Amino acid sequence: MGEQLDRATAHSSPTPLIQDRELGTGTVTLVGAGPGDPALMTVAARDALASSTIVFYDRLGPTDDLASWAPQAELIDVGKLPGFHRVPQGEINRRLVLAAQQGHRVVRLKGGDPYVFGRGYEELVACRTANVPVQVIPGITSAIAVPGAAGIPVTFRELSQSFTVVTGHDPFSDEFCAALVTLVRSGGTVVILMGMQRLSGHLLQLRQHGLTAATPAAVIMNGCTAHQRLVTAEVAQLPHAVAEHGLSSPAVIVIGDVVSLAL
Amino acid sequence: MGEQLDRATAHSSPTPLIQDRELGTGTVTLVGAGPGDPALMTVAARDALASSTIVFYDRLGPTDDLASWAPQAELIDVGKLPGFHRVPQGEINRRLVLAAQQGHRVVRLKGGDPYVFGRGYEELVACRTANVPVQVIPGITSAIAVPGAAGIPVTFRELSQSFTVVTGHDPFSDEFCAALVTLVRSGGTVVILMGMQRLSGHLLQLRQHGLTAATPAAVIMNGCTAHQRLVTAEVAQLPHAVAEHGLSSPAVIVIGDVVSLAL
Repeated sequence: MGEQLDRATAHSSPTPLIQDRELGTGTVTLVGAGPGDPALMTVAARDALASSTIVFYDRLGPTDDLASWAPQAELIDVGKLPGFHRVPQGEINRRLVLAAQQGHRVVRLKGGDPYVFGRGYEELVACRTANVPVQVIPGITSAIAVPGAAGIPVTFRELSQSFTVVTGHDPFSDEFCAALVTLVRSGGTVVILMGMQRLSGHLLQLRQHGLTAATPAAVIMNGCTAHQRLVTAEVAQLPHAVAEHGLSSPAVIVIGDVVSLAL
Repeated sequence: MGEQLDRATAHSSPTPLIQDRELGTGTVTLVGAGPGDPALMTVAARDALASSTIVFYDRLGPTDDLASWAPQAELIDVGKLPGFHRVPQGEINRRLVLAAQQGHRVVRLKGGDPYVFGRGYEELVACRTANVPVQVIPGITSAIAVPGAAGIPVTFRELSQSFTVVTGHDPFSDEFCAALVTLVRSGGTVVILMGMQRLSGHLLQLRQHGLTAATPAAVIMNGCTAHQRLVTAEVAQLPHAVAEHGLSSPAVIVIGDVVSLAL
């Protein structure tokens, strides 16, 4: 019993949301901005922006009114830094740390939640490594809110025991596909983010591993905004329907019986 | 091609967050209150409370300052309605609808997100069936934010291609277990909500389907609050460590390599 406990680690001290370590003059706050509707930002996110002196943002998340939410701040689009075709993560990390070391109250505004395929952890580690005080404010993830706003609950009692959120950026392995298909067959929901470019390939792969052609599926573009576009179809018809209606990245893909609940 | 499209349904009209149908004098708003920290409520949630005249809430989510956020509202704890040992969902649905029909601006405040194992869809349907105008405001789910506040990102680039959120309320089927184990083995994260009562049983079942005894795991109680308690251990030792440190429901269980990233 003692030996077992030696291998366990217990932390009973509180870990507050704000984890400033007061080692530098500036701070970095990684802020989840939610799925696009400004009203779906948290109170903590708005407070962080209100007191920030520099904001690094990119195209995801609500940014139209950024200047009014962060009236004291310089606003920097890290999707468009001069000299970079696509800004490398290391460059973003470097700029966050440098700004904090210069005394700024830095907000790094990220669409959705910083920890859902968002490189939030890498930015956290970069700040910690540089002894820059850093905190993380979670945000509402598009993976749940975008289907929800389209009338599709990611879970429904007695229908779904699970939902799985997947990045569709890279190809799926065979065993990964087989596992996803098993979950969908047992009533689970699969939500694919960043999957539009490989949509046909992913669906073909899933069908090769047993996903029924008639499984309900949906693609939602501009979710949680007034420009939302929703296409629902059986899995077998989804790529065609998406092409026909001109939906493109970024969009959220939902596969599973819950799609049939869409109101 | 025409035939394929016949089976697809496309909706290009916007579905705004607020879906009032103006059929009754009152309204119902299903509000996700987030994981516990009041600052993690959304601006939309705070606005809905501020204008509400009646709030139905239960023990999950931040409720200490409810009277100040909803100063015009009668506050009703539907976890404790008189005459019920445990309030049936039908009774909650009935009271929401009745209050709206009486002209109230009803808020149904739910911990986390209404669509993550939260019966939100059932309440939505009850309102729609009764022709009561109803909207849903998503909230931050504990499944992501609680691990995050404990320093555990649910995804990490090049480590995890997925995370799966599971209700641990009921036993797992064999094929469901096998699929979860495959996902964890491929670097995915499994988050179990409502799983504390069956913790030992679930872990035993997962190990019988191949989950390695040394897989990193964590239990987090009172997450996203100043009373957070975190226990991390290898899967094989987790039930013992949890018992030793006295952690109990409600708590969030995390299984997967990301636990080893905890800062």
